[in-house]
Amino acid sequence: MSKLKIINKEDLKDWAKEIFQKNSFNMVDVSSKKETFRRALASGKIYVGKKVFDLIQNKKMPKGDPITLAEVSAVLGVKKTSELIPLCHPLPIDHTATKIIMNELDSSLEVFCVVSAVAKTGVEMEAIMGVNSALITSKIIN
Amino acid sequence: MSKLKIINKEDLKDWAKEIFQKNSFNMVDVSSKKETFRRALASGKIYVGKKVFDLIQNKKMPKGDPITLAEVSAVLGVKKTSELIPLCHPLPIDHTATKIIMNELDSSLEVFCVVSAVAKTGVEMEAIMGVNSALITSKIIN
Amino acid sequence: MSKLKIINKEDLKDWAKEIFQKNSFNMVDVSSKKETFRRALASGKIYVGKKVFDLIQNKKMPKGDPITLAEVSAVLGVKKTSELIPLCHPLPIDHTATKIIMNELDSSLEVFCVVSAVAKTGVEMEAIMGVNSALITSKIIN
Amino acid sequence: MSKLKIINKEDLKDWAKEIFQKNSFNMVDVSSKKETFRRALASGKIYVGKKVFDLIQNKKMPKGDPITLAEVSAVLGVKKTSELIPLCHPLPIDHTATKIIMNELDSSLEVFCVVSAVAKTGVEMEAIMGVNSALITSKIIN
Amino acid sequence: MSKLKIINKEDLKDWAKEIFQKNSFNMVDVSSKKETFRRALASGKIYVGKKVFDLIQNKKMPKGDPITLAEVSAVLGVKKTSELIPLCHPLPIDHTATKIIMNELDSSLEVFCVVSAVAKTGVEMEAIMGVNSALITSKIIN
Amino acid sequence: MSKLKIINKEDLKDWAKEIFQKNSFNMVDVSSKKETFRRALASGKIYVGKKVFDLIQNKKMPKGDPITLAEVSAVLGVKKTSELIPLCHPLPIDHTATKIIMNELDSSLEVFCVVSAVAKTGVEMEAIMGVNSALITSKIIN
Repeated sequence: MSKLKIINKEDLKDWAKEIFQKNSFNMVDVSSKKETFRRALASGKIYVGKKVFDLIQNKKMPKGDPITLAEVSAVLGVKKTSELIPLCHPLPIDHTATKIIMNELDSSLEVFCVVSAVAKTGVEMEAIMGVNSALITSKIIN
Repeated sequence: MSKLKIINKEDLKDWAKEIFQKNSFNMVDVSSKKETFRRALASGKIYVGKKVFDLIQNKKMPKGDPITLAEVSAVLGVKKTSELIPLCHPLPIDHTATKIIMNELDSSLEVFCVVSAVAKTGVEMEAIMGVNSALITSKIIN
Repeated sequence: MSKLKIINKEDLKDWAKEIFQKNSFNMVDVSSKKETFRRALASGKIYVGKKVFDLIQNKKMPKGDPITLAEVSAVLGVKKTSELIPLCHPLPIDHTATKIIMNELDSSLEVFCVVSAVAKTGVEMEAIMGVNSALITSKIIN
Repeated sequence: MSKLKIINKEDLKDWAKEIFQKNSFNMVDVSSKKETFRRALASGKIYVGKKVFDLIQNKKMPKGDPITLAEVSAVLGVKKTSELIPLCHPLPIDHTATKIIMNELDSSLEVFCVVSAVAKTGVEMEAIMGVNSALITSKIIN
Repeated sequence: MSKLKIINKEDLKDWAKEIFQKNSFNMVDVSSKKETFRRALASGKIYVGKKVFDLIQNKKMPKGDPITLAEVSAVLGVKKTSELIPLCHPLPIDHTATKIIMNELDSSLEVFCVVSAVAKTGVEMEAIMGVNSALITSKIIN
Repeated sequence: MSKLKIINKEDLKDWAKEIFQKNSFNMVDVSSKKETFRRALASGKIYVGKKVFDLIQNKKMPKGDPITLAEVSAVLGVKKTSELIPLCHPLPIDHTATKIIMNELDSSLEVFCVVSAVAKTGVEMEAIMGVNSALITSKIIN
């Protein structure tokens, strides 16, 4: 590991652009984009069966209330999206909220996660990650 | 924030046990369990449509090859499970591998993630988290 | 885990607002707030006893100089606040500094941690977290 | 940055020991210690005033129930101790639980955090970090 | 750990400035700086020997293609710079790309990592960290 | 994202092995290996020039003493190796120490980082990552 050089932007010639054009993968370059208000909502559903559904509804789950825990998990997932998905930009999350609706008919939990940010790229992935964290937490707590 | 006290295990009386019995939620106490070999396989499927499916197969996706990226994402998800799911124990992962199989019939990607560890608790959640990270990455790259 | 849907902001109807109104907990939505200059200072004190105090002052502590280590710990705590406190927004920290003052009279270390950012929400929690990390590090090194 | 060399343990001569003896700080070397069962309990107290205390007790806090959130925060703090305190070893946490007791007399919340692990070093710091995260979360939610 | 106080900016007197002037180390205060476009390119080189070089070129490396993995590693390194280097500010990375060029003549891999951000401080350290992560990954995969 | 299945180890048939054999990349499976004592030492060198070298030696560097900061950075790098290098296993670090030797003759800092663990795989990568973090910190502080 030798010959480490640091080149500032004024020295970054056009050849550099060429070099980076045929990468294995490409993060979208958002440096020239404006920050705008972004909001996305993702949802997912998990079928837990009638027995577990009743336990949750009666707050009798041995590991605790899955609803609150899943909501917290969603926040953690939203905030850590760019650590898990290499191509995701780290975003300044302004808000996230997660709501879990219990459907008695099919013994399911439906997770809704909304994420807001004033950013250069969308927050769809963050919302999906939030939903997934919540669903996995609902699973573990069963 | 005052009166911070540290109590070592010999001083931890039975009243402590009582105190902790009615918590909002409960992490399973695995301290008296033996470490055994654990392995779990989780899988998930994402339907990408014929057009995207062909682009992936011909390695023409503009952001790069989703297959490799999804595999890497899965490893990151597996390793970070206990950071996203509060009740999960941090586990000494011995191995994880992710395979993505392309099904031409229904234009889907099927993700398989296996996780191994010699641990006191199972690695199911880690495998699920790996699958989910891979699926979300497949999504972003579309 | 099926029926994952992504809904962009234009499709986010008013019913969504309603859904999220009765959550288990609520992150403050700062998306419509302006970024302004924020600065907060927190402080805390730890009593180490005369013997340890003298060791620190004479740079004789076996694990090294607690002062520098505590300062570094504070920076790490400030930066990781939103990873430990689910309701905290990730903030673009512009500056943080920590000063530890040794009070000979009561054999105490007093930690001051200042944090600055141009942000939509205050940095009080970051400053408190910095103080706490520094105090805990002072403790471990004793 | 050149001349990077990797030296395996058999090549690690005694001069190495000497080199490392006068460091700025020293992590305790636990490599020759046996893993034993460790448990520690830490506690801390925060005075919130009668008004806030009543709001908490009646579950009327606008940001949600601080009790559950503080419990979750404690788990996150326990797990991230070695990321915030440089000299702390990463430990395989087997269990952690946090209990928050509301004292009506002095309008205070008292946090108890217990941590267990089979490890080569104690979990006192993890318990303290858990208490602190819980206390800071109680603060933010006020 | 008592007497925790939070002081808001209006209460932050000049004496505070004095206190923080003689710290063990100083993070640069960028709170009054304007955000401008920043870009930096760093590069590094690793000599792998003719045998390994041929294996890489023929995609015969037992652990997989080091080129893609090193590119991913670089992204992770860039994003985590401020977690490893205490004095680094957390920056809103807009783009990063890494290119690895194989030099047949000296059996070396040359890594180029470019990082862009609209920020108050430069991204040189992020680019260097990206290069280093890529180089270390190339090493492990050998 | 549907049809998520969890398969426990007893159900994991031989076909699974086949599936995972032709991955994009392969983490070494260490689940059947025994834990043994591991130690590795890595070193690296940075040339800072006579002017900076004198400033460091006279403790006149404006951002603080690079020696201590680089030592702390090394610990953080060692602990975070498996977060930056996807193929690295998370390891239970028992000890790490970093020594920086100042060579007046060529105005260089030479970094030595030793890492110890009782683990199933070596700690070479951790030691290299420690050296690199220390070198980059030395650089930033210049």
